[in-house]
Amino acid sequence: MHLQKEIAQQPGVITRLLDEGGAAIEAAAAAIRDRNPVFACIAARGTSDNAAHYAQYMFGALLRLPVMLATPSLHTVYETPPDLSKALVIGISQSGQAEDVRAVLADANQQGALTLALTNFEDSPLAQTAQFHLPLLAERELSVAATKTYTAQLTLIAMLTSALAESQAMWNELKSLPRLAAQALSFCEDIAGWAERYRYCDRLVTLGRGFNYATACEISLKVKELTYIASEGYSEANFRHGPIAAIDRGHPVVLVSPQGKNLAGMVDMRERLEELGAESLIISNNSDLLRQGTQAMSIPSASEWLSPILAVMPGQVFAMRQALARGYELDKPRGLSKVTVTE
Amino acid sequence: MHLQKEIAQQPGVITRLLDEGGAAIEAAAAAIRDRNPVFACIAARGTSDNAAHYAQYMFGALLRLPVMLATPSLHTVYETPPDLSKALVIGISQSGQAEDVRAVLADANQQGALTLALTNFEDSPLAQTAQFHLPLLAERELSVAATKTYTAQLTLIAMLTSALAESQAMWNELKSLPRLAAQALSFCEDIAGWAERYRYCDRLVTLGRGFNYATACEISLKVKELTYIASEGYSEANFRHGPIAAIDRGHPVVLVSPQGKNLAGMVDMRERLEELGAESLIISNNSDLLRQGTQAMSIPSASEWLSPILAVMPGQVFAMRQALARGYELDKPRGLSKVTVTE
Repeated sequence: MHLQKEIAQQPGVITRLLDEGGAAIEAAAAAIRDRNPVFACIAARGTSDNAAHYAQYMFGALLRLPVMLATPSLHTVYETPPDLSKALVIGISQSGQAEDVRAVLADANQQGALTLALTNFEDSPLAQTAQFHLPLLAERELSVAATKTYTAQLTLIAMLTSALAESQAMWNELKSLPRLAAQALSFCEDIAGWAERYRYCDRLVTLGRGFNYATACEISLKVKELTYIASEGYSEANFRHGPIAAIDRGHPVVLVSPQGKNLAGMVDMRERLEELGAESLIISNNSDLLRQGTQAMSIPSASEWLSPILAVMPGQVFAMRQALARGYELDKPRGLSKVTVTE
Repeated sequence: MHLQKEIAQQPGVITRLLDEGGAAIEAAAAAIRDRNPVFACIAARGTSDNAAHYAQYMFGALLRLPVMLATPSLHTVYETPPDLSKALVIGISQSGQAEDVRAVLADANQQGALTLALTNFEDSPLAQTAQFHLPLLAERELSVAATKTYTAQLTLIAMLTSALAESQAMWNELKSLPRLAAQALSFCEDIAGWAERYRYCDRLVTLGRGFNYATACEISLKVKELTYIASEGYSEANFRHGPIAAIDRGHPVVLVSPQGKNLAGMVDMRERLEELGAESLIISNNSDLLRQGTQAMSIPSASEWLSPILAVMPGQVFAMRQALARGYELDKPRGLSKVTVTE
């Protein structure tokens, strides 16, 4: 079972990125500082698109840099690329094979923009197209469902943000990440004790906001890929504008709600869900909130901006445990292959 | 039943916008031309957020203007607004009461950006905060599920794009929109004949791409709000990167696939879905593709950029028919109110 091994490898990959990834980060950061882009545009699909959501909040909150998510079909299908000449254009893809992501960067190069890729393969088409490349250093990922490459993408985004913010405090906190990640994984062992309760659940909602909107989307995707549950991730705010109508008695809802500026909103949402009779599965480092959940998934304490790298782990393990309980193939979900090329 | 009446009012609202909305459009367009923004940033929630997706493709494809969707929590929760000073910042909200959307525009004003609101209430906080206001002219919408205000938002976005593109050809085509919209609604009468087949379906996927990505998201939201089905909307490309794993025999999938540059990809997707044993519900004006669906929802022929205003209508009617078949309250879905204020 590659999936289980790859989940366990995450602290090691993070250590390697912190030890060996610095030079590539500094080179990219220097070029970005030099160019001083008006905004960033990130092209990505699937799991990598969730890493892009994390970058939206990291760059926005800590660098005040607005981030748009690319619309690749404007480049590939319509052939009317928007003007990205004043942007920092970033492509994220585990394989580096995503042709539509590559096309966005190729157009951006032609327009004179600064381009950067995050991939696990130095010689991939995407890495070769970008002016700068940040390697994921995650070794080969064999399970179709991405885990260690996702947390590697987030770690690189956090490192790049720390470099651009010139924040020694952020770097200091990043140094503790391997230890925190190992601790987060050890906390996940509890999940096996209660996961069977959800053996026959056929729908799941995952909520997060701000830095952890990415986490909600990624946990939702992992559950969907591995268990085929109708699993949806929302911003807690958007959820109130419509989708909450679908919640009834017993509906399981994962709340990604670590300590931080969004905690109060999530506490309020949990109460709202309790009124509706829903089951809440809490991912948090706040002990009061954890006690109020139907299930508690504890993560180590960390700054809110760092918490997404830890908070996704119980979601990965929950998805894996569900797949095991249902007797599904872990490494090769039906209908998927490791590299999906869309144009 | 307000919902049914409001769906039927759509051609009339579009006529009113074309007849009376021109002056506000020209004033906003002149200010935008004058300012020449580097990118646009759109803040919106729920249905209005789907209108923002339409604007991404309209502004991108026809004006080459990159569009980012705002991250309101950076303004309200984290109080670290990104630098939008070189952007055109647009807020979309039926009620104009969305506090987080208003906060994005207030920050943008302070940063010296150009701000524009689309609302149905001239005296709403959002309309009052923006430098320019485009009224939806949709009269009061009483059903909680938005229909006529959504197509009004799309029509205004299409009008604004036509004005900025200075395209007489686009204006000419817009003139035919009231007639096409009335025709689209008359075609929807067929849906009552087969909608009961889906009485017990509890999950649904809706796919679109490019201009009609917005349509897929909006149909998915209407179905979810009105029927509580686990209903998800995807870009056809993103769907291939993971969520397709959840499709098995009999899973209903709505394909929003009018004639245009994305048709080939959607034809290919329908074949892929047939291999998986899924049921395909086709919204199109391409007769070959319509014949291949489990169900056919025909819409009038129009340019691809205009088609989202027509293609959403069979989705609205399908959602309403499902709610009727299930005996649900049409105008007041459980857990929702017409005005949702999030911060």
